[in-house]
Amino acid sequence: MGLQQMEQSRIMRAEAGRTGQDAGAAANAAANEGPGAAAGAAPPCTVVIFGATGDLAQRKLFPALYGLHRDGLLDPRTQVVGVGRREKTPEQFRCELQEYVWRFSRLAAPARQAQSPGVGVLPQWEDFARRFHYFRLEMHDAEGYGRLQSFLEELEQAAGVGRRRIFYLAVMPDLFGIVTGNLRQAGLLEAPTPAPDPAAAHGAGKANGTAGLWPRLVIEKPFGYDLESAARLNREIRQAFPEDAIYRIDHYLGKEMTQNISVIRFANTIFEPVWNRNYIDHIQIMSTETVGVENRGEYYDRAGALRDMVQNHMLQLVALVAMEPPSSLESEAVRDEKVKILRSLVRWQTPREVARNAVRGQYGPGRVAGQDVPGYRSEPEVRPDSRTETFAAMRLFVDNFRWADVPFYLRTGKRLGYKATEIAIQFKQLPRILYFHDYGGLQPNRLVIRIQPVEGVYFQINAKQTGTQTEMMPVAMDFCRNCGTTANSPEAYERLLFDVMRGDATLFTRWDEVSLAWEFVDPIARAWEQTTPDFPNYPAGSWGPEAARNLLHQDGRSWWPE
Amino acid sequence: MGLQQMEQSRIMRAEAGRTGQDAGAAANAAANEGPGAAAGAAPPCTVVIFGATGDLAQRKLFPALYGLHRDGLLDPRTQVVGVGRREKTPEQFRCELQEYVWRFSRLAAPARQAQSPGVGVLPQWEDFARRFHYFRLEMHDAEGYGRLQSFLEELEQAAGVGRRRIFYLAVMPDLFGIVTGNLRQAGLLEAPTPAPDPAAAHGAGKANGTAGLWPRLVIEKPFGYDLESAARLNREIRQAFPEDAIYRIDHYLGKEMTQNISVIRFANTIFEPVWNRNYIDHIQIMSTETVGVENRGEYYDRAGALRDMVQNHMLQLVALVAMEPPSSLESEAVRDEKVKILRSLVRWQTPREVARNAVRGQYGPGRVAGQDVPGYRSEPEVRPDSRTETFAAMRLFVDNFRWADVPFYLRTGKRLGYKATEIAIQFKQLPRILYFHDYGGLQPNRLVIRIQPVEGVYFQINAKQTGTQTEMMPVAMDFCRNCGTTANSPEAYERLLFDVMRGDATLFTRWDEVSLAWEFVDPIARAWEQTTPDFPNYPAGSWGPEAARNLLHQDGRSWWPE
Repeated sequence: MGLQQMEQSRIMRAEAGRTGQDAGAAANAAANEGPGAAAGAAPPCTVVIFGATGDLAQRKLFPALYGLHRDGLLDPRTQVVGVGRREKTPEQFRCELQEYVWRFSRLAAPARQAQSPGVGVLPQWEDFARRFHYFRLEMHDAEGYGRLQSFLEELEQAAGVGRRRIFYLAVMPDLFGIVTGNLRQAGLLEAPTPAPDPAAAHGAGKANGTAGLWPRLVIEKPFGYDLESAARLNREIRQAFPEDAIYRIDHYLGKEMTQNISVIRFANTIFEPVWNRNYIDHIQIMSTETVGVENRGEYYDRAGALRDMVQNHMLQLVALVAMEPPSSLESEAVRDEKVKILRSLVRWQTPREVARNAVRGQYGPGRVAGQDVPGYRSEPEVRPDSRTETFAAMRLFVDNFRWADVPFYLRTGKRLGYKATEIAIQFKQLPRILYFHDYGGLQPNRLVIRIQPVEGVYFQINAKQTGTQTEMMPVAMDFCRNCGTTANSPEAYERLLFDVMRGDATLFTRWDEVSLAWEFVDPIARAWEQTTPDFPNYPAGSWGPEAARNLLHQDGRSWWPE
Repeated sequence: MGLQQMEQSRIMRAEAGRTGQDAGAAANAAANEGPGAAAGAAPPCTVVIFGATGDLAQRKLFPALYGLHRDGLLDPRTQVVGVGRREKTPEQFRCELQEYVWRFSRLAAPARQAQSPGVGVLPQWEDFARRFHYFRLEMHDAEGYGRLQSFLEELEQAAGVGRRRIFYLAVMPDLFGIVTGNLRQAGLLEAPTPAPDPAAAHGAGKANGTAGLWPRLVIEKPFGYDLESAARLNREIRQAFPEDAIYRIDHYLGKEMTQNISVIRFANTIFEPVWNRNYIDHIQIMSTETVGVENRGEYYDRAGALRDMVQNHMLQLVALVAMEPPSSLESEAVRDEKVKILRSLVRWQTPREVARNAVRGQYGPGRVAGQDVPGYRSEPEVRPDSRTETFAAMRLFVDNFRWADVPFYLRTGKRLGYKATEIAIQFKQLPRILYFHDYGGLQPNRLVIRIQPVEGVYFQINAKQTGTQTEMMPVAMDFCRNCGTTANSPEAYERLLFDVMRGDATLFTRWDEVSLAWEFVDPIARAWEQTTPDFPNYPAGSWGPEAARNLLHQDGRSWWPE
């Protein structure tokens, strides 16, 4: 996956720190990719962010870029161009930039404590801010793109960065086709001249012959509302970019512990032999939130939990947990295996099948963390008679030799009593012999991969415990990455942006993955549209609707850790 | 194993504590086995301890009996008779008793802190001390046994305890035959009259039709010096006691974590499938000490590490780790499986085989914990030209379908740098694909069962770790029973004494186990006697002789955690 390189660079920094050197200086000293290039850094490029005044850019992308800069992973020549509708001077833009990095960067906290906000200077700030430029553009204004072209060409020349452009669409999906179409027509996507230098294909080159392609397109979810709209969206952007140059972000894939799923499975002798229907009773994947829709009411009320969470994040987690070992860790090898899982999903087609295997819910008023909170229908920008689900749970099956008959239970929702994204692999009970015969209450073994907010692995075994109520008791063995000291590991978006720059598409979803996920989700959404739900059906702060509990009780199981 | 009962009684105590009741009163209130009997307590009996003024009785047996008393596991009628050569009044005996319990009981510590030593009173002390009696006897004096018989009969009558006698021989093995012979001739072993009541066969009755046999004999190691002497010893005691009434103590089997070996294997779905030659690379069993021979020089210089540790404790651990799942948890079922392992051991017969697979050592002067310490040959009561080994390491194989070709490495010694009894199960390396291909330094999975001084399980897996030197790193998941707060779990001897009273022989070694262990050890001892070792060959405080390291290096392995 080429992650080694990223780590090597971090090691270099750590070593520089140990010997008292400046980390950046050490990286520069080791430069070997051209003037001013840092060892381990991504190739130089220009990141063009559409929607630079939006939430995503401000809260996630700018802080992530700062993290990469601070870790020496941005080439010194790399430029960032914010594109937005509003009039803004470069100074204004950088000033806002500082504010957001100050507020949201994992690296700003210590500086913030030491100095009063607004007055202090973030480490290496000037070097970082100098990369940033602002360009005013009305997205529908075809002519504006010509001016953007000139702006970029000038910038590229001045920075010596070459024509390696990343277009990051942090805008509503309605605009994807318009922006990409205009980019193409205005000539912004023309192949770089001169021919891409070796550094451009560097790193991920081995992963995929075409992975070094420039320019690149990065898009965010939601990618469609159903298969049809997703396919239309895809056709639009594919008129401008080939599949291999498109990076569809599912930020769950950038999370440290999501990447750890594969490591746990494939770098340990002991798990792979039992990772199948012979030993596993069932798998639970939960991603629950305590918050409501916050300021995303308008978007959320059109999407709902099924489209917002299940179609992308949760099915991706299913694929990672269930896939066969890939032939290599390279991009296409891993995505091929994930696609095979999505293709093996048993599809709930009829309303009856859907009713039997899926549950939806919507929260009413309730209490969360001791505070009264309103019901979903009273949230801002939500229709007062909304039928949108804020909770979804389902049973699904992966119909292959490894997983046939092993249920996967998914559960996601807003305003639940507990916030966690976790995968619980529950192993089969032993036959009722020996200790299981004498001590009826024995818990099955469970391996829980905790993705957020706790990052770690929890492994539950049975051991003999004295001085407690029964002779046998479940014992937890766990390691936690972010407990105790303040975690300062890279954010998901750092990894993802770095990978785009390096042309490594492993952690991005390919079109066939997206379309197969919609094929699974569409019939469920359709079945739900055909009946009127009895909403609200769970109070805020609860574990969700009773029907979700029954879904597992029918199978003689229960949700973990409920 | 009937352990449930012991636990139930503890629960009762805990519950009594919660509701403010006195634990003993609660136990008595629930009595259901006869006048004054506590629920969960062992049947009433008389424990006759030969060697009552010796080290074992004072440091281990008295404190263990106090622990059982405090936990409500001794029937109120149960009596203890100390037998020794010295003249002593009952008061003197009880006064010494208090001193030793005070010093060595796990339960005395809080009392000790609260009050100055010697002045304070241990909780429930009077009730406990009232059980104790002293009888002066010269072990060779046949007539004295007649007086002991009268003494016991009187005591049994007064206490209403019935004739259920446990003879605990805490004396040198030379005396075993003499004592048991005299016991028999003086009529002390005659069957109880009236016929044993149902309580006597209670609990372990289901384990073995004859397990309820009275009287019972408890003997301590060393059980012989070789197969021949052990067989002679066994013939002597078998003239007085049937096999089913003989409890041979191996106190390692009483340790909490030793019992946990079976629980970990047979109460967890995930370990049993990989517990074999397909997944396990090798197994290491270490039992190392930092102390020298202390005040046991005379005994130790005749025994050595092979007889003192390998023949009993370490081969017992091999058997527990390697045995097939027993058909039940009952005494004979478990011991049958252990015997099968001892029978499957590949025996090193020729001096050449021994030289290739076993290593011995003796410590010279060195430093332990910052202190200069003398070599073995300068220890008290050790011959100045002693050829006795204070260190033994070996490679052994269990020749059955589960373990063929999987080496078991044993290592034990005195005056080493580290004190631990641990079993490390090292799983095979994955093939060099995927993460193992990209990250050469990946550690294999290891499951370490820690028996002492740390009690717990340590499980080493590979995970992705950020901010560290390599992308992948081994991560430890562990649970520790006795870390943190002061452990207050029952001592090995509490469990073992309780089991003798209840007639549960599971944690005691049967004659066929003992004899098979000697059959394995004897040829090694003989081979060692035929050559003069180059002693001393390791300094005190080291990891033992270089040859032990080579033993594993030859196989491309190394000791853990060295």
